[in-house]
Amino acid sequence: MSGNRGVVYVGPGKVEVRSIAFPELVDPFGRNANHGVILRVVATNICGSDQHMVRGRTTAPSGLVLGHEITGEVIEVGSDVLTLQKGDLVSVPFNVACGRCPMCKAQNTGVCLTVNPARPGGAYGYVDMGGWIGGQAEFVMIPFADFNLLKFPDRDRAMAKIRDLTCLSDILPTGYHGAVTAGVKPGATVYIAGAGPVGMAAAASARLLGAAVTIVGDVNATRLEHARRVGFETVDLSQDASLSEQIAELLGEPEVDCAIDCVGFEARGHGHAGSQHEAPATVLNSLMEVTRVAGGIGIPGLYVTDDPGAVDEAAKKGSLSVRLGLGWAKSHSFFTGQTPVLKYNRNLMQAILWDRLDIANAVNVTVINLDEAPSGYAEFDSGVPKKFVIDPHGSLKKAA
Amino acid sequence: MSGNRGVVYVGPGKVEVRSIAFPELVDPFGRNANHGVILRVVATNICGSDQHMVRGRTTAPSGLVLGHEITGEVIEVGSDVLTLQKGDLVSVPFNVACGRCPMCKAQNTGVCLTVNPARPGGAYGYVDMGGWIGGQAEFVMIPFADFNLLKFPDRDRAMAKIRDLTCLSDILPTGYHGAVTAGVKPGATVYIAGAGPVGMAAAASARLLGAAVTIVGDVNATRLEHARRVGFETVDLSQDASLSEQIAELLGEPEVDCAIDCVGFEARGHGHAGSQHEAPATVLNSLMEVTRVAGGIGIPGLYVTDDPGAVDEAAKKGSLSVRLGLGWAKSHSFFTGQTPVLKYNRNLMQAILWDRLDIANAVNVTVINLDEAPSGYAEFDSGVPKKFVIDPHGSLKKAA
Amino acid sequence: MSGNRGVVYVGPGKVEVRSIAFPELVDPFGRNANHGVILRVVATNICGSDQHMVRGRTTAPSGLVLGHEITGEVIEVGSDVLTLQKGDLVSVPFNVACGRCPMCKAQNTGVCLTVNPARPGGAYGYVDMGGWIGGQAEFVMIPFADFNLLKFPDRDRAMAKIRDLTCLSDILPTGYHGAVTAGVKPGATVYIAGAGPVGMAAAASARLLGAAVTIVGDVNATRLEHARRVGFETVDLSQDASLSEQIAELLGEPEVDCAIDCVGFEARGHGHAGSQHEAPATVLNSLMEVTRVAGGIGIPGLYVTDDPGAVDEAAKKGSLSVRLGLGWAKSHSFFTGQTPVLKYNRNLMQAILWDRLDIANAVNVTVINLDEAPSGYAEFDSGVPKKFVIDPHGSLKKAA
Amino acid sequence: MSGNRGVVYVGPGKVEVRSIAFPELVDPFGRNANHGVILRVVATNICGSDQHMVRGRTTAPSGLVLGHEITGEVIEVGSDVLTLQKGDLVSVPFNVACGRCPMCKAQNTGVCLTVNPARPGGAYGYVDMGGWIGGQAEFVMIPFADFNLLKFPDRDRAMAKIRDLTCLSDILPTGYHGAVTAGVKPGATVYIAGAGPVGMAAAASARLLGAAVTIVGDVNATRLEHARRVGFETVDLSQDASLSEQIAELLGEPEVDCAIDCVGFEARGHGHAGSQHEAPATVLNSLMEVTRVAGGIGIPGLYVTDDPGAVDEAAKKGSLSVRLGLGWAKSHSFFTGQTPVLKYNRNLMQAILWDRLDIANAVNVTVINLDEAPSGYAEFDSGVPKKFVIDPHGSLKKAA
Repeated sequence: MSGNRGVVYVGPGKVEVRSIAFPELVDPFGRNANHGVILRVVATNICGSDQHMVRGRTTAPSGLVLGHEITGEVIEVGSDVLTLQKGDLVSVPFNVACGRCPMCKAQNTGVCLTVNPARPGGAYGYVDMGGWIGGQAEFVMIPFADFNLLKFPDRDRAMAKIRDLTCLSDILPTGYHGAVTAGVKPGATVYIAGAGPVGMAAAASARLLGAAVTIVGDVNATRLEHARRVGFETVDLSQDASLSEQIAELLGEPEVDCAIDCVGFEARGHGHAGSQHEAPATVLNSLMEVTRVAGGIGIPGLYVTDDPGAVDEAAKKGSLSVRLGLGWAKSHSFFTGQTPVLKYNRNLMQAILWDRLDIANAVNVTVINLDEAPSGYAEFDSGVPKKFVIDPHGSLKKAA
Repeated sequence: MSGNRGVVYVGPGKVEVRSIAFPELVDPFGRNANHGVILRVVATNICGSDQHMVRGRTTAPSGLVLGHEITGEVIEVGSDVLTLQKGDLVSVPFNVACGRCPMCKAQNTGVCLTVNPARPGGAYGYVDMGGWIGGQAEFVMIPFADFNLLKFPDRDRAMAKIRDLTCLSDILPTGYHGAVTAGVKPGATVYIAGAGPVGMAAAASARLLGAAVTIVGDVNATRLEHARRVGFETVDLSQDASLSEQIAELLGEPEVDCAIDCVGFEARGHGHAGSQHEAPATVLNSLMEVTRVAGGIGIPGLYVTDDPGAVDEAAKKGSLSVRLGLGWAKSHSFFTGQTPVLKYNRNLMQAILWDRLDIANAVNVTVINLDEAPSGYAEFDSGVPKKFVIDPHGSLKKAA
Repeated sequence: MSGNRGVVYVGPGKVEVRSIAFPELVDPFGRNANHGVILRVVATNICGSDQHMVRGRTTAPSGLVLGHEITGEVIEVGSDVLTLQKGDLVSVPFNVACGRCPMCKAQNTGVCLTVNPARPGGAYGYVDMGGWIGGQAEFVMIPFADFNLLKFPDRDRAMAKIRDLTCLSDILPTGYHGAVTAGVKPGATVYIAGAGPVGMAAAASARLLGAAVTIVGDVNATRLEHARRVGFETVDLSQDASLSEQIAELLGEPEVDCAIDCVGFEARGHGHAGSQHEAPATVLNSLMEVTRVAGGIGIPGLYVTDDPGAVDEAAKKGSLSVRLGLGWAKSHSFFTGQTPVLKYNRNLMQAILWDRLDIANAVNVTVINLDEAPSGYAEFDSGVPKKFVIDPHGSLKKAA
Repeated sequence: MSGNRGVVYVGPGKVEVRSIAFPELVDPFGRNANHGVILRVVATNICGSDQHMVRGRTTAPSGLVLGHEITGEVIEVGSDVLTLQKGDLVSVPFNVACGRCPMCKAQNTGVCLTVNPARPGGAYGYVDMGGWIGGQAEFVMIPFADFNLLKFPDRDRAMAKIRDLTCLSDILPTGYHGAVTAGVKPGATVYIAGAGPVGMAAAASARLLGAAVTIVGDVNATRLEHARRVGFETVDLSQDASLSEQIAELLGEPEVDCAIDCVGFEARGHGHAGSQHEAPATVLNSLMEVTRVAGGIGIPGLYVTDDPGAVDEAAKKGSLSVRLGLGWAKSHSFFTGQTPVLKYNRNLMQAILWDRLDIANAVNVTVINLDEAPSGYAEFDSGVPKKFVIDPHGSLKKAA
């Protein structure tokens, strides 16, 4: 059992599957982690935010083991762990959280104060997020396991839904957080910017929350086609008809009750010309335009403090030209930040287990084996409407 | 147009359709009501709470025109009305509310301070609720029309869904209020006491709110059968297996996250013997038993301050023997009172118009004409799983 | 009673007291307003947002009667008004609101959909806010009086506190809204940008809400001195020590739990050099720096969609260079818009009447007569720590 | 350091200070508790709920070490503890909570699922609460220390306020929870049933939350006198003037916005005659009478599932004759249960440290040494307006 293999960031545009160390109950700072467990990874997904690193838009060092969307089976239990046992099947929130600091105690696990010396908030396999080793691998160590892990109540029932449950580690709660903070509730009209996996998860969440209509916008025709196929309305932002015009065509009015930004800082402009180049404030500004007065705007899409590859000097420092005057005139509220997965994952698991949330199809889960990870990254980067799930031990294949 | 006919309470067990006065823009206190409109009634439903009066459980006077669930078309507009016009199709919240007192301004329209001199809160066609004339009639006057009425945005689209939209005046928001106050959200497990129309509306609401599982309990086998037919889990309280045992069989654990009392003060006991007689605290006490710690209990079911027909002296004064010690040990919260319909009806309308809420089927809307109202009352009282909707002008028949 | 005099905007830098028409029960669109009342103005305040017009930063037309902070006595009652009588002493929320549209029904009176054809939200005496005549005058008409007006329960008790109660029409609820949306609660540490009247009202509100420490920052030494005199901590932004350094000196840590922007779009830079010139995003960006992770930022300070006098092209369109990446990394939430006064004014009135809120002293209410209004405008513009309250009929003088 | 002495329940009416075992890092179930710390107790308070046991109203076994209100200094740190060190001064929430179960993760630490095999929720030194050894002693073991303990940021500053900070372990958060759940906010009028320490803590909390007026009611004249001395309004329930009459005299109306039950199941009747005997539903029923429509009722006062000493058979099973019909007619909400201290104690600590909350005086903290505990119990039981704080090592005496 001492071997391990994982997906490693090698350099801009390049990831490789390499032999890596078998995990130990030790944290990135060299301290014992008796509060941790070691998991045999059952499913681990490629995430859009991994792409930021792989595209070279960050300072991620070569050699970093990727992967923060992890589902696994407990194979070793630290001596301080009380509620988990070998054999338990668990979902891992992408946020590393200690469960002991004021932020964790208040459910703000996205900004845990202790797991990352550089700034609040940790994650597995991610640059500047504390140095926790990623989980796109055969095995991974999860600290503060009692606090962090969500145990599936029944192993067989879970494996039967594993393509859905693998979405609990990140994109589903992230899309859901966007929808909840935007104020989605029964009868709401909702616009979601971005038809990638997080956007589709937000759309599925909006539907689960009772939204009357859920509209997804993108510049990518294939993604829009997929969105329609799984039951959502769409607007094509590569067209010259404006976003509000397209919304008006669907709803009879140019505004929605709630809007969700599932794109983030690598946004492109709108329209035939605009969609060819990056324009980082486009999404936010367009959301203010189409959100009704007193509406909420959820922003699960990632915005960064430093972006060396940005289009202008301000954006390199994370400053964007935001039409704040417009938002203010409309009494908008804005909600940002990493999703505190722990706040939502138990309920979302229940929704999946009881057939209320068809998330795997909504995001088009596509299972690949570990060695296919590099091509999965490449294909995902091309904009296909797929959510790649790595199956390092063939568990999903077997379950299917 | 000067004629009018309505359903009149004559005495215990007896209602008749009689000629009544054509409505005027005058309030029950004899003041002009230029803020009001007159409606041609399009649909008006028989409600379980009407039954309390008809059974003689209240001090309702003979001659009272019944009906507080009203949908209609505006045919006359008071001079102070600004937002409505003749021809508008509108839903009427059962609460009469002024829109000008502190309670109305804070959305607590169920306890409006000005429309009922006897106590906060008014309703149409109901004893002790301010003397507003009921709407189980051809025509009715609605005061404070700008504030109270919900206009359907498109007449044709509305008539196509009129069997659903008629539920907006009371039972749908009432069931929904029960679900919302009980804390129902995505992934929740929910138990609803009572499979009558409000119970079914609560069940449909829980589903719309994303509940993982919704369980409805009753002692009436026919109602339970209907509940299963429209997609809900059920427990049969006339059986000797306890409620918690039956829940455990469905969920694998004997408790739910949220519970809703859609029965109220005329509750019966549970079990073979118990279900034969009235036992007013049974429902509440059983909900504390099956609701998990820190859970919420919504109580849209009516409890009254005076009940001359009650089983004991305490109950005649509205006092019930409640297992408060149990609720306290489990950190429960309890939410009571008339539903403030206005807080919810716009969003629920949207959910209906966009096909998210199949409420007419859930409550089994059954359309009758005005002259069939007395037999509708009788049949409803026998416990059939139907929601009787009176169609005084044949509008629904025509639309169908 | 047919005479009236009011404060009129003549042109950039110039206001005059002129004879104006006596108010009628007619709205700006020429319709009867039987829902309105006419007030004899008891107190009417000069507001910082009036200054934007007077400085020529807007398109306000010459001849506009100013004034949206009004307290008065009812002297004429429209025929549709039910809850008010001649002689009632009332506070007028600065927002004109109809009480009949979906936004008003949901307490979002700052964005009423019907009182301003140009965009949601109306106000008295303000450019682009619907054309409602201002109340820096002897008499003024208030529409939808039952809905809008807050009646003081006891006239004598009210006149004894009238210097405080005059703050209910705008700045007190506005500061309070900032504090509430920022999440201020008992024990919170709070930073407020701006020591003008709204800033001081926010500070007094934070204290009332139980804040542990309330810190006010400004570049104006006299205002800071006043802030300290009434019991708040201060930071001097004209100094070169950074905001976070100054906070750290007070709190032992460089961050606060909640922050409130009471400055808005005419913000100046920080530091010796910076404070000499306008830098519209300075405040917001500095608030993100000093607000702890998962904290809230309330933005009652006004940001506009069009600002012809702005420092750059983007700002002229209401676009500011916001460090969104920083806010996102810290999981901040942002709350903007006109305050819905009606949501808060009753409770704040109670707090004043029961001696819990010494707002007149906190903002340094300074009573002047109507003819002193022009010099009041000039003096206020110079940055004195005073809130000028016009006393057109000598009522306050008499009460004092 | 191997000695220890503690307050032991011997039998009805009898407590003694005895030698007890020095604490070990072991839980009541015999398992290692490396997650725990051992505290040298700095302050430990006698609580009204201890009295239930001492009066023989429970099944508490002879020999039970009492005490769940604990403040102490860390003297030994378990190997799995990460955030605490020897010498830290900490407040202990009375709830024992694991920080690892779903309830703890959602801040419902009052109903932790793992620390008490009998039912959710644990406490130190209390019957049926998991067997955790009490802290009215020189030394005590606290499990799950990282999660449970609140560290005071500065030792000297803390010792200067230690009489206030000792209230953080229970009564202050408990009173505050009552106030928060009752909906107390700025401007609210508040009635608090019970002028004992929890009632006074609720009153101080209501004031901190901005209440306009806070009224405390009791049948004990000495306690009422104390309440007036520290600045609250009072009503004397031993008088024959009804509660609502007395409230009307103070407020000009017979109702309040919010009400808090700080009495619980050992309530007495009202009026000259009533106050002589126990009448367990009196408080709740009177609160419904005096709480305005749509108001909230917080119930931090303890109600129990089994009360062998109760006045009637129903009460012995925790069933009370509650006027639910009245509450329903008024749309009341009710909030019960053990306070989750952890949700509030950090903020309340801040309020104390920054001089916003004079809790020691409000509850009249009276410091005694360990050997005086038995007489403290006796004196407290007589109804004196004092909160007894045991100072086992003379630390408070030295700090004073």
